[in-house]
Amino acid sequence: MSTAPRPVVTAFGWVPDFARGLVRDLRVRWACEEIGRPYDAELLDATKPRPDEYLARQPFDQVPAFTDDGLQIFETGAILLYLGEQDERLLPTDPQARWQAISWLFAALNSVEPFITRISGYDLFHHDKEWMPPAREAALGLCRQRLKRLTDALGDKDWLAGQFSVADIAMITVLNNLRHTDIVAEYPGLAAYKARGEDRPAYKRALDAQLADFEEKQPA
Amino acid sequence: MSTAPRPVVTAFGWVPDFARGLVRDLRVRWACEEIGRPYDAELLDATKPRPDEYLARQPFDQVPAFTDDGLQIFETGAILLYLGEQDERLLPTDPQARWQAISWLFAALNSVEPFITRISGYDLFHHDKEWMPPAREAALGLCRQRLKRLTDALGDKDWLAGQFSVADIAMITVLNNLRHTDIVAEYPGLAAYKARGEDRPAYKRALDAQLADFEEKQPA
Repeated sequence: MSTAPRPVVTAFGWVPDFARGLVRDLRVRWACEEIGRPYDAELLDATKPRPDEYLARQPFDQVPAFTDDGLQIFETGAILLYLGEQDERLLPTDPQARWQAISWLFAALNSVEPFITRISGYDLFHHDKEWMPPAREAALGLCRQRLKRLTDALGDKDWLAGQFSVADIAMITVLNNLRHTDIVAEYPGLAAYKARGEDRPAYKRALDAQLADFEEKQPA
Repeated sequence: MSTAPRPVVTAFGWVPDFARGLVRDLRVRWACEEIGRPYDAELLDATKPRPDEYLARQPFDQVPAFTDDGLQIFETGAILLYLGEQDERLLPTDPQARWQAISWLFAALNSVEPFITRISGYDLFHHDKEWMPPAREAALGLCRQRLKRLTDALGDKDWLAGQFSVADIAMITVLNNLRHTDIVAEYPGLAAYKARGEDRPAYKRALDAQLADFEEKQPA
């Protein structure tokens, strides 16, 4: 029996339906499932501010924060990189392949995600505002540019850095923020890539675990 | 005389005034200057699409792309991490301090920058649109939340991860995208932090080098 301590990832005990399967602890759960690393989820209440001491673990009062054997990390990019450094199934060890994967990890979070969450933010939180349609239209042009470049870069490769890596975990969960639209389907290569990732058993286990941790009803 | 190869960073040979001092190769130049690592700038034309082969180095057709001794990296976050791994003046070696710095590096690029570039994007590219003021107002609320959390997390520390690190290079250059506004000044601790970074001789040398590389006139 292993005596390795189990890492702890924070997650929410309840979120509205539109957020289920999108909360970012999913990325960490997925990485742990890929390498068979058992972890514990520490469930927080999403409906009120977290206790002040939580800000020392996650300065933006979000999930996930991550603890492994006393080491504290926040930001899914950093946590994915940490797990990747421990297991080459998540991050190749060949120098060029490693830096290609790390480049794509940052690209998912800085060159793609902001253009996608602008669209999903308009759709989810501002759908009733008069200014929203033209603002969304302007943002959609930029988003499509990024998705086109991403599709071209992926080409006929299965994964961004040759082998499957944390870059794919980040990119596929980023793309999923558009699941309420048909935008990803405009890029068949990208849609196939996303489906390929979501078909991995580790993804399915991670998603099931996130969903199983949600209470059905909003806490009073 | 050192025979270490000089890394190459791509940059633009001309950009409009509003972008001078903001183009992201500045981050890489700053990191190189902090550790006294000579580098070469490869200047590209910002006014037309780059040659197709450039996309293999930078899939989003942006700057910077980075090459060191044959190794190719894109995304400023990845390049900063790479340089940090080579010199503890840019990234502490103590494990908790290292992961704190890496967490903040990702935070600058994923939890802060997208909220800032939304504002600067409205101001620079959509200032004449009717829908812009209410859209900007909605985005400003989110941006202020992030800056308040960042200010609180910084507290009375000089730098995000204890010692100066690549996280500060990323965060301070991210904040500078608001230089056309008074928003950062609303948070005196944050404004002082930004000034502290920009007062470093390495920052000044990097900025001078970027500005010196710009042609005065837009290429015909």
